[in-house]
Amino acid sequence: MAERPLILVCNDDGINAPGIRNLISVMNELGEVVVVAPDSPQSGMGHAITITGILRCDEIRIDEGPQKEYSCSGTPVDCVKLAVNVVLDRKPDLVVSGINHGSNASINVIYSGTMSAAMEGCLEGIPSIGFSLCDFAWDADFKPALPYIKKIAQKVLKEGLPQDVVLNVNIPKYAGSPYKGIKMTRQCRGNWEEEFDARKDPRGRNYFWLTGKFVNYDKAKDHDEQALADNYISVVPVKSDLTAHEQLERLRNWDL
Amino acid sequence: MAERPLILVCNDDGINAPGIRNLISVMNELGEVVVVAPDSPQSGMGHAITITGILRCDEIRIDEGPQKEYSCSGTPVDCVKLAVNVVLDRKPDLVVSGINHGSNASINVIYSGTMSAAMEGCLEGIPSIGFSLCDFAWDADFKPALPYIKKIAQKVLKEGLPQDVVLNVNIPKYAGSPYKGIKMTRQCRGNWEEEFDARKDPRGRNYFWLTGKFVNYDKAKDHDEQALADNYISVVPVKSDLTAHEQLERLRNWDL
Repeated sequence: MAERPLILVCNDDGINAPGIRNLISVMNELGEVVVVAPDSPQSGMGHAITITGILRCDEIRIDEGPQKEYSCSGTPVDCVKLAVNVVLDRKPDLVVSGINHGSNASINVIYSGTMSAAMEGCLEGIPSIGFSLCDFAWDADFKPALPYIKKIAQKVLKEGLPQDVVLNVNIPKYAGSPYKGIKMTRQCRGNWEEEFDARKDPRGRNYFWLTGKFVNYDKAKDHDEQALADNYISVVPVKSDLTAHEQLERLRNWDL
Repeated sequence: MAERPLILVCNDDGINAPGIRNLISVMNELGEVVVVAPDSPQSGMGHAITITGILRCDEIRIDEGPQKEYSCSGTPVDCVKLAVNVVLDRKPDLVVSGINHGSNASINVIYSGTMSAAMEGCLEGIPSIGFSLCDFAWDADFKPALPYIKKIAQKVLKEGLPQDVVLNVNIPKYAGSPYKGIKMTRQCRGNWEEEFDARKDPRGRNYFWLTGKFVNYDKAKDHDEQALADNYISVVPVKSDLTAHEQLERLRNWDL
């Protein structure tokens, strides 16, 4: 690339979240930055898109950085589609999403708006990375993660990524001791076990809050949850082809 | 299973859609049916869940069938979580989602609320199937598809499914000639190329409608789009482990 790389930044916690402000600050060191991010929190939106309603996308100024920014009424995936098709006049060299407030390791990858934005960049044929810090706090300490984020983004800008593959980067909550390094790993087998909180509204009608806790079902140790537990930054290559290729032959033997 | 199988039915087009009414009629022949489905259309919701708001889930009676039905304010995935954790007193033997009005072949699988509901059933450890008819019309002709849906559901009730694998069943729009049969196949490589429709509201402010057309990038012929074009019912086994395992070794050679 002759000119400075063009970097699209998105997230799911909303354009004002500390996580994306930190990510923007790193990306400003690497290229020309355009931010297209949701105007409000969109956590847990998965790969949702807005097809029954309209979308707003307006330029906005939030801090003194050199980046251009657009606040969008839609989901994280809407933001990437709007960015690529409406906002930007050339294809970005990199899409980064995050830094998410909270883990997107293991099965969280399929619920995550942050990772879905990165996946949408990948589907558009752009090298794309989702970054998440395993700390839900609004005032989480992102600083120790930033040099690693810069290093991974630089590597992807230089090497590209395999076709139809996006990186899911998760960073342990900073607990005082330096991160041990970066591990390329796989998605842990696990799931959320829900506990719905059932309540009655002031008119006596039932309603529910979704709550739950993550349960690790994986007996092995070569996965993202283990890397994070060991204070490594976890990188999982995630693909858009969901076919269980290894099951095709077996299932073709079914008499259907 | 000693008693009649318990079958959970969900969809993303809403509990009143003709597609789910047809699916319920078939499932009533196979077992005890409980429906937990969205109270309004939720197409394109992907694997979204409701975490910042409340959920409603109320019993409802829509037709004279023997099934029990619950109308839910949330996304398709919320419906399955509520069904398994709140509504049902035992784990279902089968989760079916659909019949979707419109294709969920190729990359549509990741945008689809119908398929995400089926995937959620799979994550709960229940054999799960998503059914879609490649016809967006509200008055689409579902009838010719019903014997195939019954056959596939019976097979899955009998054989189960591999762990962490869900079936994505797509059925061609009925064009007068009988379906040629069922093909076990893989997800076609393709994507939506967007064309945003930019408009001005009555106050002069910009807004956008998301539109687009599907583009098939796959040169091969052994995929779901081809099976559908050949008038076969396509069955793709879809997995919840998104790791690009085949890229791990290459990426581990990166100096990070």
